[in-house]
Amino acid sequence: MKLTTLPKTVEPDPQQLIWSERLRTTFPLNEMHAFLEGSTEASVHTLRLMQQIERDPVLQVKPDYYELSRGEHRELTARKIARLAQYMEQDAPDFQTFQDRLNLVALIDPQLGTRIGVHLGLFLSAIRGNGTEEQFNYWAFERGAVYMKDIYGCFSMTEIAHGSNVAALQTLAEYDIENEAFIITTPHIGATKWWIGGAAHSATHTVVFARLVVKGKDYGVKTFVVPIRDSNHDLYPGVAIGDIGEKMGRDGIDNGWIQFTGVRIPREYMLSKFTKVDREGNVEEPPLEQLAYGALLGGRVTMVTDSWRTGERFVAIALRYAVGRRQFTVKGETVENQLINYPLHQKRLLPFLAWVYGMSIASNQIQKDYKDVLQKLDDGVKSGDFGLLNKSIEGLKGLFADSASLKSTCTWLTADLIDECRQSCGGHGYSAYAGFGKGYADHVVQCTWEGDNNILAQNSGRITIQKVMAFEKNGKVSGSSGYSFLKDAKREGAILSNESDLKNLQTLNLALKSIIYRIALKCVGALEENGKNWDVIANEKLSLSKLYAAEYILDKWIVKIGETRDAEVRKQLENLARLFAISNIDRFGVYFLQQNVISQQCYDTMERYTYQVLREVREEVIGLTDSFKLSDFFINSVLGNYNGDIYHNYLSVVKSLDTTAATAKAPYAGEFLAMLNRSPVELREKHQRSEAVLSKLRSD
Amino acid sequence: MKLTTLPKTVEPDPQQLIWSERLRTTFPLNEMHAFLEGSTEASVHTLRLMQQIERDPVLQVKPDYYELSRGEHRELTARKIARLAQYMEQDAPDFQTFQDRLNLVALIDPQLGTRIGVHLGLFLSAIRGNGTEEQFNYWAFERGAVYMKDIYGCFSMTEIAHGSNVAALQTLAEYDIENEAFIITTPHIGATKWWIGGAAHSATHTVVFARLVVKGKDYGVKTFVVPIRDSNHDLYPGVAIGDIGEKMGRDGIDNGWIQFTGVRIPREYMLSKFTKVDREGNVEEPPLEQLAYGALLGGRVTMVTDSWRTGERFVAIALRYAVGRRQFTVKGETVENQLINYPLHQKRLLPFLAWVYGMSIASNQIQKDYKDVLQKLDDGVKSGDFGLLNKSIEGLKGLFADSASLKSTCTWLTADLIDECRQSCGGHGYSAYAGFGKGYADHVVQCTWEGDNNILAQNSGRITIQKVMAFEKNGKVSGSSGYSFLKDAKREGAILSNESDLKNLQTLNLALKSIIYRIALKCVGALEENGKNWDVIANEKLSLSKLYAAEYILDKWIVKIGETRDAEVRKQLENLARLFAISNIDRFGVYFLQQNVISQQCYDTMERYTYQVLREVREEVIGLTDSFKLSDFFINSVLGNYNGDIYHNYLSVVKSLDTTAATAKAPYAGEFLAMLNRSPVELREKHQRSEAVLSKLRSD
Repeated sequence: MKLTTLPKTVEPDPQQLIWSERLRTTFPLNEMHAFLEGSTEASVHTLRLMQQIERDPVLQVKPDYYELSRGEHRELTARKIARLAQYMEQDAPDFQTFQDRLNLVALIDPQLGTRIGVHLGLFLSAIRGNGTEEQFNYWAFERGAVYMKDIYGCFSMTEIAHGSNVAALQTLAEYDIENEAFIITTPHIGATKWWIGGAAHSATHTVVFARLVVKGKDYGVKTFVVPIRDSNHDLYPGVAIGDIGEKMGRDGIDNGWIQFTGVRIPREYMLSKFTKVDREGNVEEPPLEQLAYGALLGGRVTMVTDSWRTGERFVAIALRYAVGRRQFTVKGETVENQLINYPLHQKRLLPFLAWVYGMSIASNQIQKDYKDVLQKLDDGVKSGDFGLLNKSIEGLKGLFADSASLKSTCTWLTADLIDECRQSCGGHGYSAYAGFGKGYADHVVQCTWEGDNNILAQNSGRITIQKVMAFEKNGKVSGSSGYSFLKDAKREGAILSNESDLKNLQTLNLALKSIIYRIALKCVGALEENGKNWDVIANEKLSLSKLYAAEYILDKWIVKIGETRDAEVRKQLENLARLFAISNIDRFGVYFLQQNVISQQCYDTMERYTYQVLREVREEVIGLTDSFKLSDFFINSVLGNYNGDIYHNYLSVVKSLDTTAATAKAPYAGEFLAMLNRSPVELREKHQRSEAVLSKLRSD
Repeated sequence: MKLTTLPKTVEPDPQQLIWSERLRTTFPLNEMHAFLEGSTEASVHTLRLMQQIERDPVLQVKPDYYELSRGEHRELTARKIARLAQYMEQDAPDFQTFQDRLNLVALIDPQLGTRIGVHLGLFLSAIRGNGTEEQFNYWAFERGAVYMKDIYGCFSMTEIAHGSNVAALQTLAEYDIENEAFIITTPHIGATKWWIGGAAHSATHTVVFARLVVKGKDYGVKTFVVPIRDSNHDLYPGVAIGDIGEKMGRDGIDNGWIQFTGVRIPREYMLSKFTKVDREGNVEEPPLEQLAYGALLGGRVTMVTDSWRTGERFVAIALRYAVGRRQFTVKGETVENQLINYPLHQKRLLPFLAWVYGMSIASNQIQKDYKDVLQKLDDGVKSGDFGLLNKSIEGLKGLFADSASLKSTCTWLTADLIDECRQSCGGHGYSAYAGFGKGYADHVVQCTWEGDNNILAQNSGRITIQKVMAFEKNGKVSGSSGYSFLKDAKREGAILSNESDLKNLQTLNLALKSIIYRIALKCVGALEENGKNWDVIANEKLSLSKLYAAEYILDKWIVKIGETRDAEVRKQLENLARLFAISNIDRFGVYFLQQNVISQQCYDTMERYTYQVLREVREEVIGLTDSFKLSDFFINSVLGNYNGDIYHNYLSVVKSLDTTAATAKAPYAGEFLAMLNRSPVELREKHQRSEAVLSKLRSD
């Protein structure tokens, strides 16, 4: 009790609540952190990088971050890019460490992550994926783009009238034989390059997606390196660029629009690992076109990681608040109850906690797969062995399918998580300094960019249905290993019949496998009835994509639990995995009932059983979020500091940022006072509506 | 085709698409607008007010609204308040017209609506509800608060550690007999008044919710008028106030915190319509305590209206965009398909369109009920007739129940609507000038303030269960008329069995009534099993509240369709009502299946049937959104202008706001160039890591 508290009043005690729960934690945090990061080595690696970021004077992020204007964000972001360029000089050629560093930076400053991600992950990846080795070496190393030196790139794919349908882009790259050059042209407003991150004020070069036209023939969309600014940052003639302006979030990114009007580039600037145009205008078409569109895959994989880490951050804030905050008195008690003790509050938040753990598994797995696939592709291309190459293309297809489902499911899930966490903090969640507002606004663009979630989910769902079709026909699963679970799925019969089924992770997993199988089968039937019109099963494809992600995660989760040595850690992971599975079944309850994967009676049982699991997870929420090892710097929220002193932290930040603190008078106080102290309307209009006046003016 | 478009390329044609659909509209817009507004008179009234707002030079809102800083928003808002004060001088005593005006202003500038809403709707309503007639007359008319003159009020209810649980507020109002005064005190940090709109820089007075303590006895929370600033806007001694700073949205509101340290107010400043404290400190307790907490009800009712209008605005933007935007080519076609033609796109957006129409019905009904109840209460209080008063209290309880369900359901629904509409516009939805970002950030606070949605929904669900309990016991529905539908509900048996059931609005309505009844019955059982622990059925209460709102709307919708003369309008309303009902059944599918309100087979049928209804509604989306009669000024979105010229509108706004347009160089370009043009790291560190140097330093 503070000395300044008056007697007989009750001062809140969030610190005591949080600390007493923290001290009751039953499992070792270091082990849990290693689980989340994938290994003990990864855990140490992450903590070292975090420490370096947190201590760096340029990379600081404080509560005032939430009040910066677009201009301030842009300037600070530029300064931080320059700082990270120095880290790159140190990290290279260990680009993985730089990427890990960048992923952590993106947690506290998403726009900064994007600014560099566009240059390295889109611009340079496009050159690497579509250019020859010599082309990549020139732009990346000889010129220095990889170190963010000399060249800063942007990625001119989307146009104002074309986003997802890349094949229909309208920008032209016409071959001019005489000058041995390509003429890049925006033929009409619809082809204006739009949303190009870094275009407005940063980039010196861009990779342009444009239709290759040679001798009047349209060869479809190919890629070209186009210089847009010289080394004084002056725009080249024919290049018109503007700032796209204010966005919902990530205002530190200078998204721009570009119109090209007869911009001439040398023939050699076409990226020609696959398609080649020789001096005379003969076009060699790519033998392996699938390989040409890989630039966005890295982004999708990164977004799974980002969803996980962002989820960690916001669920930690909401759960610390839920433990420290009291509201309403339960019958028979004298002090108010903690928010976290209410079953509805548990049901709102704890499935998200389970998903965060699940996303860590998804992130670790798909990051690993991504590296493997890229390595195999490189090996395949270098070897020139067509068989090896074809095999690595299978891997690429599998990665495409997995990332389509995981990127869309995880980014959507994290958007919902941030919003529900905000609402669970009541009014305080609406304070900018709680972090949710900007967190949400910055995050949700991931549901749209680099593959719109609805379209990715449609792709994923379609693949699942096709795999089931093939499996039905051939009795075996084709292609990548992601669908081998179909062999285990049960085509019919209830899988979940009683409480012991709900406790058994293997049975829950079987239920997920089987529901996917059965929904897909139903879709196959619907396709046959509807003349192969895939649009009528669009909603099912969406659900299949989300269920695929859940199954992907639970499957690996069970394996990882088996590998976990510490019994207490294992116990927590089992509880969370159960909650994860059950909440997914609940979310798609209609399917599970319709397909009889769960019996009607067991569904009733599940409702009660869910509360039991929630109660168990609830007991450890402080430990389960401390395990993320996010310092206050990475949390950056007045509601979620480690010390649990919610109200003092909050008031002190608000006070420190209040520029009117001395007087509590606004700069516009005079204007407001003029209104309040105005004379009555009768005086201001000199009584011109009074009876005395009107009688003078009256003619009747 | 524009002359500047190069041959053989395809310029987008959104105007043509939108206009050709507009010209095909089959029903009269004026009739539909009258339906939405409640009557032809209301339609004209609304249009006149809209015209006045749109033409007023001070009340302007343009695309640059989306880029204003907090300081700019605050200053402009203050100027607009002064402008609206002049309208008030003209409108008074027709306060309803002023309120209607304010509701429309809130559509384009929500923060402005709130700023005035806090003063008139909270501060003055609290005085009206809790003060004597003389007290109200003094503060409102004699001093001029009602005209926003002399007095500007704020509403000091919530504290940093207490929001929803008003009864546990900690601020003290101790009676000091000697000085015949109350001493207002914030005893500890947890009692700091927080989120007080208008406190930071505007208010001269506040209504404080504080515990009345007389001679050491705590009488619970009562209300007191406390002056906080004098007419020079200087804070009174003992009053500490600060700015709460940046928020997720509505930054034009100067929310503040207040700490009172021994602030003395005359005894007469206590609002004493109910509780009275005489000179000697004798306390007379209120006979009708229910009447004391009415201040928030008006806000809840207003939020239903605001959800409807906000829903109109954003669904119109998304649907115009969906008609004008093409994406992907369907097999056999040469031009790309309109977004709106995709069944999934229809399923994402059109149920929201149906909800918007439904919310108009809810808004009109509850606004009417609110006025009736207030009138009856006033009559009752004035008459002194206890019977009359008791009857009006029944009306108040009914309004409390209805508004709890409708406020929570409609504000959540509109939040989801804005977000889904944004995502449906792809990347362009993320542009600030599309309006969704600020629209969402501004709207969502309504899910939390003036009754947190989760808590209101719990209240509503609890009431439903209690009504069903009483109905089971007595065979008749007690209290307000809102629950008379229970008499019609069917306790068992499938209600929806085939497609013709799904077409029949009465049958769909019966299904809604019955599902509520059955879920409530199930809850009654669960309560008996669990020793009346209401927490275990928290999730069901939440669902019951949402279903109550759906039934409330559909019930009145059917009546209104019967009253609609124009056959084409009726046809549209029937389609929308069907879609509304079906999408609610789909949303709560598990309950409907579990409770056998819909048969398994019919559920399958419903999935197909839904697409048929969606196709029919899709045909008229331009007419159905033009019917809102929202001009471009009220739409304020680059994606949703009436002329349909999406891309030119968008580019032209972006260009007009681009301060760097002349050079496309950032103010920080120099810093960025310094990074790009930096010398190699070897030079910058003077080769101190080179082998040549290291060999000099080596000792081995």
